[in-house]
Amino acid sequence: MGEALVSILPDMKRKTVDTFIKKAQELDFQLIETKVKPVSLVSVTKTADGIAEISSREDITLMPGKLLKKDDSICLDFGDHHVGYVTLKLNSAGSPQDAPAYLRLKFAEIPGEILDDSSTYHGWISKGWIQEELIHIDVLPCELKLPRRYAFRYLEIFAVDTSAKFQVVVENVELTAVSAVSLEEAEPLSSLPEDLKAIDKASLKTLQDCMQHVFEDGPKRDRRLWIGDLRLQAKANYATFRNLNLVKRCMYLFAGLIREDGKVGACLFTEPVMQVDDTFLFDYSLFFVSILYDYYQETKDLEIVKELWGTAYRQIVLALNDMEDGVPKTENPMMAFIDWKDGLDRQAAAHAVWIYCLRQGEVLASLAGDEAAKEELRVMLADALEKAVSHFWDEEKGFFVSGADHQISWSSQAWMVLADVFEKEKSRALMLHLLEENPEMGVATPYAYHHVIEALLHVGEKEKALELMRTYWGGMINLGADTFWEAFDPEDPHASPYGSSQVNSFCHAWSCTPAWLLREYFTGDTVPVIQDR
Amino acid sequence: MGEALVSILPDMKRKTVDTFIKKAQELDFQLIETKVKPVSLVSVTKTADGIAEISSREDITLMPGKLLKKDDSICLDFGDHHVGYVTLKLNSAGSPQDAPAYLRLKFAEIPGEILDDSSTYHGWISKGWIQEELIHIDVLPCELKLPRRYAFRYLEIFAVDTSAKFQVVVENVELTAVSAVSLEEAEPLSSLPEDLKAIDKASLKTLQDCMQHVFEDGPKRDRRLWIGDLRLQAKANYATFRNLNLVKRCMYLFAGLIREDGKVGACLFTEPVMQVDDTFLFDYSLFFVSILYDYYQETKDLEIVKELWGTAYRQIVLALNDMEDGVPKTENPMMAFIDWKDGLDRQAAAHAVWIYCLRQGEVLASLAGDEAAKEELRVMLADALEKAVSHFWDEEKGFFVSGADHQISWSSQAWMVLADVFEKEKSRALMLHLLEENPEMGVATPYAYHHVIEALLHVGEKEKALELMRTYWGGMINLGADTFWEAFDPEDPHASPYGSSQVNSFCHAWSCTPAWLLREYFTGDTVPVIQDR
Repeated sequence: MGEALVSILPDMKRKTVDTFIKKAQELDFQLIETKVKPVSLVSVTKTADGIAEISSREDITLMPGKLLKKDDSICLDFGDHHVGYVTLKLNSAGSPQDAPAYLRLKFAEIPGEILDDSSTYHGWISKGWIQEELIHIDVLPCELKLPRRYAFRYLEIFAVDTSAKFQVVVENVELTAVSAVSLEEAEPLSSLPEDLKAIDKASLKTLQDCMQHVFEDGPKRDRRLWIGDLRLQAKANYATFRNLNLVKRCMYLFAGLIREDGKVGACLFTEPVMQVDDTFLFDYSLFFVSILYDYYQETKDLEIVKELWGTAYRQIVLALNDMEDGVPKTENPMMAFIDWKDGLDRQAAAHAVWIYCLRQGEVLASLAGDEAAKEELRVMLADALEKAVSHFWDEEKGFFVSGADHQISWSSQAWMVLADVFEKEKSRALMLHLLEENPEMGVATPYAYHHVIEALLHVGEKEKALELMRTYWGGMINLGADTFWEAFDPEDPHASPYGSSQVNSFCHAWSCTPAWLLREYFTGDTVPVIQDR
Repeated sequence: MGEALVSILPDMKRKTVDTFIKKAQELDFQLIETKVKPVSLVSVTKTADGIAEISSREDITLMPGKLLKKDDSICLDFGDHHVGYVTLKLNSAGSPQDAPAYLRLKFAEIPGEILDDSSTYHGWISKGWIQEELIHIDVLPCELKLPRRYAFRYLEIFAVDTSAKFQVVVENVELTAVSAVSLEEAEPLSSLPEDLKAIDKASLKTLQDCMQHVFEDGPKRDRRLWIGDLRLQAKANYATFRNLNLVKRCMYLFAGLIREDGKVGACLFTEPVMQVDDTFLFDYSLFFVSILYDYYQETKDLEIVKELWGTAYRQIVLALNDMEDGVPKTENPMMAFIDWKDGLDRQAAAHAVWIYCLRQGEVLASLAGDEAAKEELRVMLADALEKAVSHFWDEEKGFFVSGADHQISWSSQAWMVLADVFEKEKSRALMLHLLEENPEMGVATPYAYHHVIEALLHVGEKEKALELMRTYWGGMINLGADTFWEAFDPEDPHASPYGSSQVNSFCHAWSCTPAWLLREYFTGDTVPVIQDR
């Protein structure tokens, strides 16, 4: 079981900045709705090595001919991952319906979820996330319009019970898929080998399905706006759909919904009321600086930098509360997020995020004309860079080490490289050393894996980066992924940060970054020679 | 497990008599709606002898203070049995709601249903009848308006899961109870001892809650109009609420929705379309005659007799198809219903129902001016009476015997007495002999028990009848019944005709007859001296 990230602060005081919230509301919009029909009936079975897969297909036109009696089921394939609302047209066959039809509907992002038994779920996050409904229908025929939104490709309709006298007929099922963007808005990558095109396609679908009224975390499960995910989604969005208003809206939401002292939350809610959650993370609050910086680089919108610089600067000031002697405190092992990896010591990576955001903060201070802050940040950055080496660098081992046990992890190295603690060549040597030594404390999520790959690209190791992308994201594609997963361990496809993969999200915002990295580093004039796979 | 009564006739042809259906529709009406609030929070536990009971109570005003986290529950008591629609006002407490609230709602007519585990149900009728809902609520606060109708006194709200961050609060629950009648419309029985008043009160509540747009069978489960139940409900209704139009409407429905050859069904549906079921029972079809006869006795409405005599006469003619050599055939042991009793041979009782209805048919023929039919029925009746003795009476044993094994049952004797096969004194001796000998093949349901008691009253044995009523219906009252049950075996309170009492109906039309019998035989001038209990 993963470490539980649950923050409960009953006495926390919230503050709302009305001008920012008003702007966020003005930037809200109608989602694009698309009608989607199921494309076939499928059977799901487990292979010898325990992987669930589609074992047979039937034409969807056969669906109304299937008479579902007690314990019968059909499984519909909608052809791709979607997020949306489902309406079923149901009827009865046989004698008159003399009992309620009792149906179980299972929505599945991947085939494995169809075979999962929800009664065996005992993970530490809510069982309520499992996309399964039990529904009584007193009178057939009926149009069953489900009020909830689901994220799925497969829908199993199982007859828990009918009666000896009648059977249930599924005449029609329609999905209204929703998103802020349409796939056509992103330029396809025509020049790449097929395996990378497949990775790009799934990345785009992942990002599309997470782009709703905010950038969602994972539409199956967590519809909140998380700032760590937002940072990566925004970058991927700049390279693809370029929906700038959605990023702007999300920045206003984070700036408008804060803790009394001005701290930006790790995530926030827009329903039933707009409010910031009582979860705060060292790295996540600092990423407000980074998101604003990236937005400026993309848009050159100086107005919003001036407007939100105060909020960004405040995150840097408040981060100091979580530091001691110039480095992040260590009492709370989950003070920063970095990755879901069990046993990961986060101190060194958190320090690197601090440096990363100080650099961007210094640029923003300058743009905002805040010379005092610029100077303050320059001094802090110099100190932070010095501490990065004196406190965390182990010259003998050739790695940054973290925490009291001097842990060597992939994430520590990746973030120190992204923070430019060393000059490029030394960073490059560090990354190659990392790949060669392959320390045991690896990464658990595409989020952390992204930072390893970005670090490799940052030091010019395109081929090595591509190799890892092909292994990791390609590994999910090889397991049938239509969208990329919240967590993936190539050694253990059933791994979960929550104690059970039943609640894992298989379309998760922070996994969409190949669409950005492929466009940024592997297209255009600088494209390297890429071998087909 | 009881014998399964499931009739499936895929090739059956239906016929609709539009003039009758039009009249039935014109007689439809708005139900009376009554707002009902829960009166207390209760705990249900099992006593040493396995009976579920209310073990503690708390004031209902404490409800909004209960914060439901995973696995917590509250149980609401609405003070009496009701049929209706429920709306819950739910909210969250603690940190912001970061997961769906996943609730299980259990509606229970009796406390035992709260403790039942639906996953253990394996009876032969649909599991869908168990009044249990599993509901995900994405956004709290919300008003949860449940679309289905429930029959219940107790409502358990159980938090299957919330999250570590929030709890569910039940701020308010309101029930809109529905019925065709109001309890105030029935004259109370003020002169009787308390135990009989309690039996009468539960009888009235049973009848009230089964009186909806038709006389329902049991509002928890079977909302169809069954003709065997209608006959008893109509009689109880004449003595109490006197809603004559509802009886009239139900007669038109049975007469208007028939098999192609004119046979009246055992039950019919009014939703989604009006149609007769494909279940036909010898005794139930014949009861159309009896219901029309009773209605005339109550109303002296000669018009409707003339209008429906053809339908009634047709049932008698068609019953002959199920007879051979002047007695009911025996190939199909469930050709007639009589009772749910396991192993009951129904031939003798069915023959008695035949005689019972021939007598009433002769009267109706005369009223309708159908002299030919009257004469035909007179001849049939004489033959049937002769056969009752020659074929079924065992002089040596002093009982009517049934079937190839010459089974002696309570139901055979009761129905032969109600059919007046013997003159009154001989019938009286038979009933006393029955009580004394107490043959093993007793009765399983209040429906059959009613006919035993009615037979005792028919021969003037009021005290013995009252004794049985006090033991049987009083036995349910002693177990906490607010309404009377579909099935009750004093020796085995968990008995069920369906393999599990979880789907039993605990407010069942055919159990409401004490309200009629007490008014007919135990009030007014002829009231005997009744000892208090």
